[in-house]
Amino acid sequence: MEHAVIMAGGSGTRFWPKSRARLPKQLLSLVTGKPLLVDTVERLDGLFARERVRVVTNAAYADASRALLDGVPAQNVVAEPCGRDTAACIALAATLIDRDDPDAIVCVLPADHVVSPAADFRAALSRAIDVVRNRPDGLLTFGVKPTRAATGYGYIERGDQLGSSGGAPFFRVASFREKPDAATAERFVADGRFSWNAGVFVFRARTMLRAIRTHLPALAAAVPKVADEWTSTGRIAEAHYAALQKISIDYGVFEKESDVVVMEATFGWDDVGSFAALARVLAHDAGGNAVVGSATMLDATNNVVLADGGHHVALLGVDGLVVIHTGDATLVCRKDDAERVKEMVARLEREGRRELL
Amino acid sequence: MEHAVIMAGGSGTRFWPKSRARLPKQLLSLVTGKPLLVDTVERLDGLFARERVRVVTNAAYADASRALLDGVPAQNVVAEPCGRDTAACIALAATLIDRDDPDAIVCVLPADHVVSPAADFRAALSRAIDVVRNRPDGLLTFGVKPTRAATGYGYIERGDQLGSSGGAPFFRVASFREKPDAATAERFVADGRFSWNAGVFVFRARTMLRAIRTHLPALAAAVPKVADEWTSTGRIAEAHYAALQKISIDYGVFEKESDVVVMEATFGWDDVGSFAALARVLAHDAGGNAVVGSATMLDATNNVVLADGGHHVALLGVDGLVVIHTGDATLVCRKDDAERVKEMVARLEREGRRELL
Repeated sequence: MEHAVIMAGGSGTRFWPKSRARLPKQLLSLVTGKPLLVDTVERLDGLFARERVRVVTNAAYADASRALLDGVPAQNVVAEPCGRDTAACIALAATLIDRDDPDAIVCVLPADHVVSPAADFRAALSRAIDVVRNRPDGLLTFGVKPTRAATGYGYIERGDQLGSSGGAPFFRVASFREKPDAATAERFVADGRFSWNAGVFVFRARTMLRAIRTHLPALAAAVPKVADEWTSTGRIAEAHYAALQKISIDYGVFEKESDVVVMEATFGWDDVGSFAALARVLAHDAGGNAVVGSATMLDATNNVVLADGGHHVALLGVDGLVVIHTGDATLVCRKDDAERVKEMVARLEREGRRELL
Repeated sequence: MEHAVIMAGGSGTRFWPKSRARLPKQLLSLVTGKPLLVDTVERLDGLFARERVRVVTNAAYADASRALLDGVPAQNVVAEPCGRDTAACIALAATLIDRDDPDAIVCVLPADHVVSPAADFRAALSRAIDVVRNRPDGLLTFGVKPTRAATGYGYIERGDQLGSSGGAPFFRVASFREKPDAATAERFVADGRFSWNAGVFVFRARTMLRAIRTHLPALAAAVPKVADEWTSTGRIAEAHYAALQKISIDYGVFEKESDVVVMEATFGWDDVGSFAALARVLAHDAGGNAVVGSATMLDATNNVVLADGGHHVALLGVDGLVVIHTGDATLVCRKDDAERVKEMVARLEREGRRELL
């Protein structure tokens, strides 16, 4: 059977003051009016029964996540006591799934990306599942055709075409390239063989567990006990989880495996990495302003505004700003500085403003 | 005796969202934590007994003004049913005062300027009162030494020195100049003989009433009946007040009288004409940010922030902005556009957002 694993480990300090210590990015309603995690689960309906959807998230967010996800069994929301990056997360989920379903195919998805239309996404996953069914020893990743020379993503270099599925070609991965500098990113985009690594993976659980045993043997040795603990007690002691090797699945496994294929993402994708990204995924007015909530723009262009609770935001003569209003705090920054919002969170922490974090 | 007349006719749309239809600039606490009108009245304590302080304001603000001003008799807060500019306001106040005290000397003061230190202001008024006592047929105005080539003020050209009072010289006014263009303003400031018209006037009530009869005979003829109506009923019918000639005291009287003297304002003065002006009158942090309320600045410079009710404003990497947070609305504009806030108010009115006005 096919199973989905939604990685919901993020804390989202780049979305302060919308995101808070108790309200990470994946639980925010940034785009559709629903929390990103809910969008992610609903997007899978029709392809995965909800009892085969698992969410791996921080223990602090587990109950809130369960409350949002009708039909996903409570024990399917796996609570990490601390973050140990994606290899530990995927090793644990694959182990739990493999125990239930030794022939399982697993789709791994980030919880907090914007993907649309949902039908295109399901069709693409479906084709990828077929590829993995026919290539049981291989791993599959999706590559997003780059639309700008982004330096914040890993890139995947496409090699030879190995076949196609439902009309969509798949290719051997020639190389994974870590986040490039600007000049290299320009070259990658111009080249045409490079795509962004979107963090969407498909593989047989067995194959991934075998790969982890090969490349991350310490992790592979430790995870079964952690899985036992989760299954028997519904929690994982922080000391046990913190002892796991902390490494991403990209570095730890994908870059080291030889049988990895890439399919092009035939769906709209944005990781919404900061408030500035909302300008890409939200509707615009004629002046290029993206607004969620109540706002008036007078000679104001290319701004991103989010306003909670009926509060009205009025922008006069400003360009390229991010203005985020919440009940107790308002952020104003330039779109160019949206990635630096985490520095503001760190500053507030140093200033002892716990109530705002 | 000496009497004070505080002109509190403004509505202050340049201070939205702090100012509202029911809360004009003079009732706002922009600088000291007290409403500007209260600061204006308290500044006079020791020079004028409060029963000799009159406030002329719109009927909509009369009760709120009375509630703020301990010791000022209720009937001294004169309620205009509509605005008819400063000549009508001063004609009415002078008429009411003259009926009580035929030898009255009147000091006219705007309600919504920032003046400090108060002791220097009282000393300057005191010297001006002495000048008028010795020149009973003349009018006196204060001139503020210009600190920049402002185009938003009227200028007063100083003529010959006529004498001095308490060591402070006074001069014949050579000319009044209306709001100049930028080049003319530069010339005025360089010249040294020009000062800003601060709207602070001293005169005998009798002399002003005589001047109004001479230069504005229709106004002079109509005002006594309006004064009767106020005294007997405590209100003025809008139709009666609206029928008065609408003209400023500067155009209508001062520019036409020959015996006008000017004294230099030996006190700090700012008319706080917009949020940008707050940068001049509020304390700054090292980055030039002027903040009232709770705020965190990260690489943010030269901004003006007002935040009500404990709400926290966080500015990241922005320069020269005005950010005004109130319970139901937030304004963001450039300091350079602060004069245009009234356009935002007009826009909101067109959009039917009455609840925000």
